[in-house]
Amino acid sequence: MLVLVGLGLWDEKDLNLKGIEEAKACDIVYLDGYTSKLFGAHKEQLEKAIGKQIQVADRTFIESGEILNYAVTNKVCLLVGGDPLIATTHTDLLLRAREKGINTKIIHNTSIYSAIADTGLQMYKFGKSATVAFWQENFKPTSFYDTIIENKDRGLHTLLFLDIDADQGKYMTANEAIQLLSEIDGAKGLLRGADVVVCCRMGSPSQLIKYGKMEALKNFDFGLPLHILIVPGRLHEMEEKFLAQFKA
Amino acid sequence: MLVLVGLGLWDEKDLNLKGIEEAKACDIVYLDGYTSKLFGAHKEQLEKAIGKQIQVADRTFIESGEILNYAVTNKVCLLVGGDPLIATTHTDLLLRAREKGINTKIIHNTSIYSAIADTGLQMYKFGKSATVAFWQENFKPTSFYDTIIENKDRGLHTLLFLDIDADQGKYMTANEAIQLLSEIDGAKGLLRGADVVVCCRMGSPSQLIKYGKMEALKNFDFGLPLHILIVPGRLHEMEEKFLAQFKA
Repeated sequence: MLVLVGLGLWDEKDLNLKGIEEAKACDIVYLDGYTSKLFGAHKEQLEKAIGKQIQVADRTFIESGEILNYAVTNKVCLLVGGDPLIATTHTDLLLRAREKGINTKIIHNTSIYSAIADTGLQMYKFGKSATVAFWQENFKPTSFYDTIIENKDRGLHTLLFLDIDADQGKYMTANEAIQLLSEIDGAKGLLRGADVVVCCRMGSPSQLIKYGKMEALKNFDFGLPLHILIVPGRLHEMEEKFLAQFKA
Repeated sequence: MLVLVGLGLWDEKDLNLKGIEEAKACDIVYLDGYTSKLFGAHKEQLEKAIGKQIQVADRTFIESGEILNYAVTNKVCLLVGGDPLIATTHTDLLLRAREKGINTKIIHNTSIYSAIADTGLQMYKFGKSATVAFWQENFKPTSFYDTIIENKDRGLHTLLFLDIDADQGKYMTANEAIQLLSEIDGAKGLLRGADVVVCCRMGSPSQLIKYGKMEALKNFDFGLPLHILIVPGRLHEMEEKFLAQFKA
């Protein structure tokens, strides 16, 4: 059996009672050390909360499906930051487990999609979301820009995940993302003077939300990761009033 | 102080450790009995999990802001089904609390936005979401239909919340929503032969997901509420494979 348990946003206290109960009842407990990282808790704190030893699983162990070999005869738990099914990796793993006839269970938890409600932006007004990827010598993806413009045309907000290179311990900052955005917008100028919302370390005691013009926030010191960027669409009166709290 | 604590999807075991800790530390604990209802737990079970007496708050008590009078001098907790900021009511309450100089705290929890990932549909491919409202003699809203078509044109999925009339204890079924959808589509025929995904009682032991043509699911018995409807956009190969598990 394979049990995917969501860890929520920040630390071991974000675990829910179901997640603790399920993890406790498993023979082996793995922590996904690749797609998700819990910034507010070490493995030891999670072990204490669950009352069980935890092994850190790397990318290959999960993506190759090696973890499933253990789940055929054991009750295997995989702890995943946020909600366990927000990343494609785990949806894929779940599907492969079922194809092998392995029973599966999912214990949901808070995802970033809930946390961004702290901005006061209404969830139903978000359009498609996108990821801002690190540019490389030969690969400079710009599709996230098109998503923003398409959403903006319809008055919708865009949630932008910022790239993570976990192997290198690199997390894109909001500053880098705003810089890329300005660069792509360039001569087109569709986002000239546009407002953005920067969400930092959501769900943590040092959570920070800033709202202002791209230009004004470009050099702001947002502190440690994770950062997330939102490009708002048309604002309702209440959304505007709420965002005013976060004006830089 | 006002502390909004999310209850998650189904029962008292969906509470997270932070939520329990915060509720325990409050002077008065209210349960939102209007915008959200926890189907899997009675007040008594929540009281046991929290170790505190709970009072049920009705619509007027929350929307009039009467609850804030207590939060000026007391530490007041409001328990809300799902995530506490997904409904506009609570965002508004939070804003009014801050305007009165009342300290606020938000403990997030799993929302339906995480739970629908069980369908295998990728979160980033959802467009704007909408609500299917009960039709009345003089008010027959159809804007949710336009949202579906706009999303579909861009290849995006549409999440449709189904109307709740909590005062009357009425919950729109997926069957009623599909019926309305067919009626509005009528001669236009943009959704003729379209597939839908029906999600029932998400996060509960009796959770049910069904995937199929609108026509085929129109008379299917989905059982007790809550139901939610998704009109998928363009499907990736993995999304298709995942949905195949739920074919009606």
